[in-house]
Amino acid sequence: MTQLQRLVIAPQQHKQGKIFLTSSQQHYLSRVLRLKAGDRFIAMDGQGSWWVSELEASLTQAKILESLCVQTELPVTVTLMAALPKGNGFDDVVYQATELGVACIIPLKSDRTLLNPSPQKLERWRRLTQEAAEQCERPFVPTLLDPIDFTASLQLPETSNASRYICVARGDAPHLLSCLLEQKLASSPSSVVIAIGPEGGWTPVEVEQATGARFQPVSLGRRILRAVTAPILALSLASSVWETTQT
Amino acid sequence: MTQLQRLVIAPQQHKQGKIFLTSSQQHYLSRVLRLKAGDRFIAMDGQGSWWVSELEASLTQAKILESLCVQTELPVTVTLMAALPKGNGFDDVVYQATELGVACIIPLKSDRTLLNPSPQKLERWRRLTQEAAEQCERPFVPTLLDPIDFTASLQLPETSNASRYICVARGDAPHLLSCLLEQKLASSPSSVVIAIGPEGGWTPVEVEQATGARFQPVSLGRRILRAVTAPILALSLASSVWETTQT
Repeated sequence: MTQLQRLVIAPQQHKQGKIFLTSSQQHYLSRVLRLKAGDRFIAMDGQGSWWVSELEASLTQAKILESLCVQTELPVTVTLMAALPKGNGFDDVVYQATELGVACIIPLKSDRTLLNPSPQKLERWRRLTQEAAEQCERPFVPTLLDPIDFTASLQLPETSNASRYICVARGDAPHLLSCLLEQKLASSPSSVVIAIGPEGGWTPVEVEQATGARFQPVSLGRRILRAVTAPILALSLASSVWETTQT
Repeated sequence: MTQLQRLVIAPQQHKQGKIFLTSSQQHYLSRVLRLKAGDRFIAMDGQGSWWVSELEASLTQAKILESLCVQTELPVTVTLMAALPKGNGFDDVVYQATELGVACIIPLKSDRTLLNPSPQKLERWRRLTQEAAEQCERPFVPTLLDPIDFTASLQLPETSNASRYICVARGDAPHLLSCLLEQKLASSPSSVVIAIGPEGGWTPVEVEQATGARFQPVSLGRRILRAVTAPILALSLASSVWETTQT
């Protein structure tokens, strides 16, 4: 069980046994993930290659230490941005999201989120990602970031090159499944970010902000789902679209 | 909130304001569901028409009382046959399956199932289907049958005309998503039955029996899912395939 952070790179960033990092990747590794020179992470080219890499002193490039053979990981990096539900519901979300192959979980504080989790709670969620990864035979443990405000999450460098979706409960947005099938057909898989709202849904202002930040509004079907069920539906679709051979 | 059992009929069984029942439907209504003359049920033709119907004295036909306009129900009847997980895990399965549009839940006793639920437990699960249907704005409450042995479940008349899938954890079965997308393309939607095993999986003999009864083995992806997560993934796919316009 390797607990290393993962980074999606473009295939051309990998040259002569090194990874040449973009400035937003440098920011993400050193500021968001707080990695230092000599720390390791996993670089993935989104085409099935995985490398254990070591950040060099310059912090602008990384040395490749070894290639990995990975069977139970998705060929695409899926990030779940989920508004925190009330009660202990997020425990199940974290566990099941890990079973479904999520790479990164970002707990969100939205306008209608009541919960402000304690450090103990975060510790517990990180322990659950480890337990779940072990149970479902994944070699990597998903990253669980500290909770951030929804508005700030829209600007995270990690998500800037991903296909981004925001799930909305009512209205006539296209279904997430259609969008994912189209995305898979149209491009080589790389990164997908899916944002799920709290009980009571996003506020109209939040949906507008997300749309402004290139999040596409999508539907998860005609029924009103709880905040603990919607992420599981969304991640079920993402993992299945990229693990099925037919499109 | 109407709590009526549902029956899928072929469009040609609906004539002159009546439903003419096949002998297996007569058996299902009167023996399995224990309906009597004068009792009501919902007949669906699998093409979007829904009728409240009343069983006539002969028990061979039913009178149509009214047409229904249904927005939040799936256009296909999805039956979940699920081996009972240990602990209270089935509570979540029942609740989330209802959110995802399931029509009928059949708790299974398989070779590796330890649980034999009490009548109170069954009562609780039926209450949960009602709560969940109300929360997610479904007009109909799914049917939850009494637990039956896996072998008996393979012969249930209710599932005889459905596309039947059995989810297996290892091996190279095609992904359920591919199968459902193909099924949707190939035929007018009608009935889907999905069988999910217990912790530890089906025994080889069970998979063989199911295959003999025209259940197609399918995969839910490369990770090992818990018995509480697998049904939610499977039902997420079924509801999404039939609620998305693109195939």
